[in-house]
Amino acid sequence: MTELYDVAAIGNAIVDVIAPATDEFLVQQAMDKGSMMLVDETRSAAIYAAMAPGVEASGGSAGNTIAGIASFGGKAAFLGKVAGDQLGKVFTHDMRAIGAHFDTPPLLNGKATAVSMINVTPDGERTMSTFLGASTEFTSEDIDPAVIEAAKIVYLEGYLFDAEAARKAFAKAAGLARASGRMIAITLSDGFVVDRHREALLGFLETQVDLVFANDTEVTSLFQTTDFDAAVAALCSKVKIAAVTKGAQGSVVAAGGETFAVPAYPVEKVVDTTGAGDQYAAGFMFGLATGRPLNVCGQLGSLAASEVISHYGPRPLVNLKDLAATKGL
Amino acid sequence: MTELYDVAAIGNAIVDVIAPATDEFLVQQAMDKGSMMLVDETRSAAIYAAMAPGVEASGGSAGNTIAGIASFGGKAAFLGKVAGDQLGKVFTHDMRAIGAHFDTPPLLNGKATAVSMINVTPDGERTMSTFLGASTEFTSEDIDPAVIEAAKIVYLEGYLFDAEAARKAFAKAAGLARASGRMIAITLSDGFVVDRHREALLGFLETQVDLVFANDTEVTSLFQTTDFDAAVAALCSKVKIAAVTKGAQGSVVAAGGETFAVPAYPVEKVVDTTGAGDQYAAGFMFGLATGRPLNVCGQLGSLAASEVISHYGPRPLVNLKDLAATKGL
Repeated sequence: MTELYDVAAIGNAIVDVIAPATDEFLVQQAMDKGSMMLVDETRSAAIYAAMAPGVEASGGSAGNTIAGIASFGGKAAFLGKVAGDQLGKVFTHDMRAIGAHFDTPPLLNGKATAVSMINVTPDGERTMSTFLGASTEFTSEDIDPAVIEAAKIVYLEGYLFDAEAARKAFAKAAGLARASGRMIAITLSDGFVVDRHREALLGFLETQVDLVFANDTEVTSLFQTTDFDAAVAALCSKVKIAAVTKGAQGSVVAAGGETFAVPAYPVEKVVDTTGAGDQYAAGFMFGLATGRPLNVCGQLGSLAASEVISHYGPRPLVNLKDLAATKGL
Repeated sequence: MTELYDVAAIGNAIVDVIAPATDEFLVQQAMDKGSMMLVDETRSAAIYAAMAPGVEASGGSAGNTIAGIASFGGKAAFLGKVAGDQLGKVFTHDMRAIGAHFDTPPLLNGKATAVSMINVTPDGERTMSTFLGASTEFTSEDIDPAVIEAAKIVYLEGYLFDAEAARKAFAKAAGLARASGRMIAITLSDGFVVDRHREALLGFLETQVDLVFANDTEVTSLFQTTDFDAAVAALCSKVKIAAVTKGAQGSVVAAGGETFAVPAYPVEKVVDTTGAGDQYAAGFMFGLATGRPLNVCGQLGSLAASEVISHYGPRPLVNLKDLAATKGL
């Protein structure tokens, strides 16, 4: 089958509400700084009522990554569930406007489109409270084999491990991808997600996954250790490629016994770290899909992450293809 | 009656969709650069489908001004019509989150919340296509006398001259304000609005208005002349105070035979001119409400405008009270 897409991603279709917040606000709201907390509709409304004025922008971890792939000039597809409401239309518009394929039927007469309230503290750190709404209604039925089989890399968002039906959809997608000889990538998404689904994730990695994205918190949580290097080594024993980010300290890319330390790109001021990991994954996978060596893939990831943390919002504001060209990548 | 508010504003309650655009896009869409075009639902959908990915943010000219007043530390109220939909909730949240009074009942089972699609070209100029939706259903019934009578300045958005019912609401508000000895201000909003309603606007100015905000296009259109100074003089003959902006050339404040030329504050890079006039009005009226001399009112306007054009989005991202303090204003 023709490779129509560099990356096809499955993730939660979410619209972000981004607002500035104080550290005191996080304490008052019992929020764990830097994490993603799932909230129900009632709690969601209470948090929103207490938040500062915000800006709405299409988000969702894998959705952001797809926007990054498109910005690099890659071909991308997204699979995820919105509702038929205004925010669902916003998400759909933004996905199609970047040129990505997005054709998952919206959920009608059910829960609203997922919303993630992102409180950004003055240090640029984002703390997320997410109401998953319609996005949890993504099922195996929504897996379009034609899209999965036509993608060089099938990328799965770890957050979906929270929804039973979506986990089954992952298994279906992974099966289709493997049968077509496609590469399967996953991001661990969040330390708490890893904590909630450690065994299932480990089993899935060992049997289905080629490439894993994680940050330092997630990888050490996965192997229940405080030793970062040991955790990366353990991850490498399970998958072909591990790309593990460490915030301002850059990332480590490990594969087939080789390990590359990739520095972070310097930024003038960190405004909002939302989407840093998502854009790292975008740069990395775009590099991989276009045949770059692994250290260059890591550099493309670092570059994309540096762009997104220098402004509010989870998706690139500049053309990443042009930005990469100016950096000789 | 106690003065509870520095400014109470009546305007279209609008959520903006802001996206980057090329000059070619404006040509293709037959848009007049820098202007505001009213569109129906069908045309609105077509424009949205053709636009780049956007960011959603509460807007509306008078709503933006109220956000500026609140950012300066002023007390503010807003009157305008949203629908009971998701974007209406966003607008309501943002208005209340800045501490402004906003209590106009939403329109139920009718048109959707107004949306303005703002295409920002690389020169920072914004071109707006607005679907007025629910906002045109603002009527005299929505004028809360307690709010109007408790405001030092009642500020009216010229865009509402396009809706017959809203024009009647203006007359009611102006009557209440005059009876309570309040100052009545209006912005002419847009050259095309002036063109559509010249006679009605002139009549309203002469009989009801103390303070007029306009830009160079609007004031010369109002008096059908190309002579800027003559237009300002003509405006002065009708109202007590005229504050006329000229983009990068700053503004002219004229009152009682005196005229002040107020320079624009320099900005490093003009990113998006959306909200420049709205924030100028905010700074000016905050100055007036707090008893500053007219030239300082103009400087506060220039300062607020300089902040908003240095980033995407129609409302201040920094605290204008603090910003003014650092500038000795």
